[in-house]
Amino acid sequence: MFFASDNAGPVHPKVMAALHEANTGHALPYGDDELMDEVRQRLRDLFEAPDAAVYLVATGTAANALALATMCKPWQTVFCSPVAHIQEDECNAPEFYSGGAKLTLVPGGDRMCPEALRSAIKAEENRGVHGPQRGPVSITQVTESGTVYDLDELRALTEIAQEFQLPVHMDGARIANAVVKLDCTLAQMTWKLGVDAVSFGGTKNGLMGVEAVIFFDPAKAQEFEYRRKRGAHLFSKHRYLSAQMAAYLRDDLWRECALKANANARRLAQGLEQAGAEILHRPDANMVFAALPRRIHHRLLAAGAQYYPWTGDFNGPADEMLGARLVCDWSLDTADINRFLDILQTSVSE
Amino acid sequence: MFFASDNAGPVHPKVMAALHEANTGHALPYGDDELMDEVRQRLRDLFEAPDAAVYLVATGTAANALALATMCKPWQTVFCSPVAHIQEDECNAPEFYSGGAKLTLVPGGDRMCPEALRSAIKAEENRGVHGPQRGPVSITQVTESGTVYDLDELRALTEIAQEFQLPVHMDGARIANAVVKLDCTLAQMTWKLGVDAVSFGGTKNGLMGVEAVIFFDPAKAQEFEYRRKRGAHLFSKHRYLSAQMAAYLRDDLWRECALKANANARRLAQGLEQAGAEILHRPDANMVFAALPRRIHHRLLAAGAQYYPWTGDFNGPADEMLGARLVCDWSLDTADINRFLDILQTSVSE
Amino acid sequence: MFFASDNAGPVHPKVMAALHEANTGHALPYGDDELMDEVRQRLRDLFEAPDAAVYLVATGTAANALALATMCKPWQTVFCSPVAHIQEDECNAPEFYSGGAKLTLVPGGDRMCPEALRSAIKAEENRGVHGPQRGPVSITQVTESGTVYDLDELRALTEIAQEFQLPVHMDGARIANAVVKLDCTLAQMTWKLGVDAVSFGGTKNGLMGVEAVIFFDPAKAQEFEYRRKRGAHLFSKHRYLSAQMAAYLRDDLWRECALKANANARRLAQGLEQAGAEILHRPDANMVFAALPRRIHHRLLAAGAQYYPWTGDFNGPADEMLGARLVCDWSLDTADINRFLDILQTSVSE
Amino acid sequence: MFFASDNAGPVHPKVMAALHEANTGHALPYGDDELMDEVRQRLRDLFEAPDAAVYLVATGTAANALALATMCKPWQTVFCSPVAHIQEDECNAPEFYSGGAKLTLVPGGDRMCPEALRSAIKAEENRGVHGPQRGPVSITQVTESGTVYDLDELRALTEIAQEFQLPVHMDGARIANAVVKLDCTLAQMTWKLGVDAVSFGGTKNGLMGVEAVIFFDPAKAQEFEYRRKRGAHLFSKHRYLSAQMAAYLRDDLWRECALKANANARRLAQGLEQAGAEILHRPDANMVFAALPRRIHHRLLAAGAQYYPWTGDFNGPADEMLGARLVCDWSLDTADINRFLDILQTSVSE
Repeated sequence: MFFASDNAGPVHPKVMAALHEANTGHALPYGDDELMDEVRQRLRDLFEAPDAAVYLVATGTAANALALATMCKPWQTVFCSPVAHIQEDECNAPEFYSGGAKLTLVPGGDRMCPEALRSAIKAEENRGVHGPQRGPVSITQVTESGTVYDLDELRALTEIAQEFQLPVHMDGARIANAVVKLDCTLAQMTWKLGVDAVSFGGTKNGLMGVEAVIFFDPAKAQEFEYRRKRGAHLFSKHRYLSAQMAAYLRDDLWRECALKANANARRLAQGLEQAGAEILHRPDANMVFAALPRRIHHRLLAAGAQYYPWTGDFNGPADEMLGARLVCDWSLDTADINRFLDILQTSVSE
Repeated sequence: MFFASDNAGPVHPKVMAALHEANTGHALPYGDDELMDEVRQRLRDLFEAPDAAVYLVATGTAANALALATMCKPWQTVFCSPVAHIQEDECNAPEFYSGGAKLTLVPGGDRMCPEALRSAIKAEENRGVHGPQRGPVSITQVTESGTVYDLDELRALTEIAQEFQLPVHMDGARIANAVVKLDCTLAQMTWKLGVDAVSFGGTKNGLMGVEAVIFFDPAKAQEFEYRRKRGAHLFSKHRYLSAQMAAYLRDDLWRECALKANANARRLAQGLEQAGAEILHRPDANMVFAALPRRIHHRLLAAGAQYYPWTGDFNGPADEMLGARLVCDWSLDTADINRFLDILQTSVSE
Repeated sequence: MFFASDNAGPVHPKVMAALHEANTGHALPYGDDELMDEVRQRLRDLFEAPDAAVYLVATGTAANALALATMCKPWQTVFCSPVAHIQEDECNAPEFYSGGAKLTLVPGGDRMCPEALRSAIKAEENRGVHGPQRGPVSITQVTESGTVYDLDELRALTEIAQEFQLPVHMDGARIANAVVKLDCTLAQMTWKLGVDAVSFGGTKNGLMGVEAVIFFDPAKAQEFEYRRKRGAHLFSKHRYLSAQMAAYLRDDLWRECALKANANARRLAQGLEQAGAEILHRPDANMVFAALPRRIHHRLLAAGAQYYPWTGDFNGPADEMLGARLVCDWSLDTADINRFLDILQTSVSE
Repeated sequence: MFFASDNAGPVHPKVMAALHEANTGHALPYGDDELMDEVRQRLRDLFEAPDAAVYLVATGTAANALALATMCKPWQTVFCSPVAHIQEDECNAPEFYSGGAKLTLVPGGDRMCPEALRSAIKAEENRGVHGPQRGPVSITQVTESGTVYDLDELRALTEIAQEFQLPVHMDGARIANAVVKLDCTLAQMTWKLGVDAVSFGGTKNGLMGVEAVIFFDPAKAQEFEYRRKRGAHLFSKHRYLSAQMAAYLRDDLWRECALKANANARRLAQGLEQAGAEILHRPDANMVFAALPRRIHHRLLAAGAQYYPWTGDFNGPADEMLGARLVCDWSLDTADINRFLDILQTSVSE
């Protein structure tokens, strides 16, 4: 019953098998391995983007920070949600990699609202060289609250970016969970809407530690390779990154893992709702945010459920309710979910 | 017959096994995994440094750049060899991570000469705030030419650093090969001589991609964790770094791999010398630099030997001789070496 | 009738005279000039801070960015108002100089509210190395809206900073206007409340281009000199900075200029109010923010008044009202004010 | 008898007068002042470059660091002399402003030798993303040793840069002294040879603190304005920079000052040579490097001459000879030189 994060689960057996298979003899280092050719081709096919530039790095923060730095000048500002990972959880990596760009937090919640984005962009006008200059818009899909922008919502944001001629980055640490939720293609969710670069996450969905960065216009990716190298994110034994990502892309493993994680989260949310919990965000993907009485938290945690409760502003008596973020990774199975819901039911009816 | 680099070989089976073993259930992310406790303890024991701060990163460049940035102010200069990896092969990563520090190249070859180091340090005096300020001395052990500083040579350098109160960093991408060559302890080769921080490489000696950074005085390591995170080098699924390093440290695997690689290189050097090649640097560790006639290179490469010949200033007719850097990683076996030497012998006697 | 800014006015004749006087023979460069000794002593006396470290730079942005970079680590965040000069008007200079620190905008208006500051600081907790770390609090006195924090308001902010052990910076580009308004000492308004470093502006109050940076604890200023030099802000012919600041400090010239500017602004505000204008911010110092009908703006501008009208959300019909920021520098005289108010009166009564 | 530096002299009376003249009423800030239009036009005329982008900053280090940062990527290296100001005297400002670029020191003395430059550039090849990438060539004219490259020597360097498609920067802190020495036009010494950007110094030749940065292709200057602003080098009261530079350019004041300084240095060198001193570098411009017996130094310094003697490797008994760098700025007059030479003569004949 580990719901604390999807970054703490095991590696999918097929990925481990691929690592083994890759482990024979010598291979060209630094991305010149043959498996990388496969990865590049599979991602181009998947995104229907035959010219896309494709790179691998080992952490989501590296993917985001390197992609943004490539899209951004140091005197610009990146527009993002106040709860974006790039703002809250990367210890200023975007500022570091970009050489001192700023992040402009678009007021609102997890999902940027188009009008708030437009206002934030407009606010940076008429200042000549004095203000920060407008830079990329970064959209997190799945958001940090577990919701998924639908295609119209995304389009509303990318159209504003285009109106101001700003590039668009998608932080897709959980992109697989989003695309299976929307039941659309990756192309529909990205470049067809005007997304310029994607952090295509794998680590949270069954890999050991690999994320792809994809630029749909390779001409805009030129600097990425230098940035990756001087950021110390170019692996000598690169084949082991490639092997993971190749296994992830073969036979739709990425999709299978995401579907399973989303289904488990949906079940969890239904059970929580039936048990009277307040569901705090629409559980579109693999995360459920719910408020429960303190008493019930105690039961769940005592029974071995793992997650982080937090205090907040919930319905019900302030000192009795605590929030829970429950994350399902690919490795949880139905038995985990059932067990959690059983304990919950019992606690409630006591 | 792959001699192109030790960064292109496979992962040791024991390390793969450890990755498998670690791959069950969930583990605390970001270095809070239990395997990291083992790693920390083993490295402290190995270095006889019970208080040392120990961190893992995935690339050698990350280890060097983060260690140096922690030891260095942006207005300082790092003293190193002109052929140091931090100078030649990291695409300005030290400058990036340090926020713009300089590298002062101590004239000479692969091994810094004490008097040249002293002169270089002295040259940065009496300039007040105008010149770069003196910063760390970085020593590469094994050097880029495959030679190993003996303890007296190291002491001569560290004493100069101490004389000017400068911290000392050791780039130990191949530290295992050095310490088995010297047949001393890691403590004798590092902190007992005044080394403050070590990049303890594993990737070139059987790991998939892990290097430890060790600060002997934990008070001087405080900033490292922030720097690692904002550099995007803190892994969520950190247990897979820990698992590799733990396996490497158990049962002296690191030593076994290094001994084998060194022995193979020594055999290679002997064979080359017997075949009349000019040995360009003392083959102390796992690398051999030799000059051979162009004709013989052709034979070797045609027969499947992999390495990079280069033009240079060798004994013999300038247009006939080419250099070879031949690197033995842990995975080469005696058969590889024998086959190479057989082809060599045959070529020579033709 | 130039009210566009206090950064566009002439240099005070006494300051010009001091530049002349300084212009004989050679003087030691880089801050070793004798006039700097006078400046240092005068500022220490004025601030009742005999040990303070005192430096001169030529621009307000340099003063702020260098001071903050000295007080801040790259992985920290600076707490400031959303309209602070460091956020809006320095083209990311604080991010650049600090090596990528972040700015956290404390919600609210020009003056930070203590509870909002506390919330913003508290929000950066429990994130370990992942979130930005808490850094300095930067207070702008006079604020960008022309208001002045009183001593109790300042204390409420500095106490919160101290509670979290965060250093406090004061952006005093218009500090003279603030201190004469409060009729207190500079010590009372700064270090006695817990302010650690001050940007002591002079450029907006009669100088050609000089600001002092003052650290009350010299031990915390050590890095400033290196940062200033590598930021290219150390002047060789430093005596000409010293001469300006010395003249500014002699005979309370700084105070005289600020008193005059404030008095003129007060008169302007009274006249505007009498003419029915909406006064948008308390005109504590040398700036008046008022809303006027479009028709009256036209008259004023046609008559030669210089300032920037802007659209906003004012009382009265939205398309008829425009805001005006009217800034009085030391050089405006009563005739300017009278003339402006005469035109205003006439326009209103038409 | 102040020969310590040309950065310590007074401001030329005509420049002071221009500052006075500029000091009436308000002027548009940040470079929109009318005097800047004059400066731009005069520099474009002087350089015969009607499209050139022209900017002013207050320090030579700012001019160099901002120009180089604009011409350079952070993963590149700048080729320069080991004694270049950007290497020795700017406390890592180029590394800071460029975001971590490296400086490659072309072996040799003050003047780069074409073959050494070519070798240094060639050495950075075949390293893919691993090595630093080739960046601008920076030429110092007048060199730090007081010598001046003639046009053929410059062409030999710029042709190599062009061969490798590298941009060329000229550090012209003393460019006036160089161009009057060569008796050529500024165009001949710069863009006609392939120089892309120039730091056109004024501070060492009679100004208070102003340097122009000139890009001959304005398209390559786009980033400069953002870099200047975020570097805190954009002055609000910019007219006082413009006024200095305008006065400097009117009536060939810059040329007059440089001619006088060079003539005085030449006289000094002749006198020194006649007195038996070893002249260490060709005294092409306004600096003389000479070695004298310790005894004579004592006499000169005791008599009030100001300069910095240094120990070095000179002809004559090692412990008896000391070097002297004697710099003539525009303000020294014949009487100073005569007095110095008289004392010298007397000392020698004693």
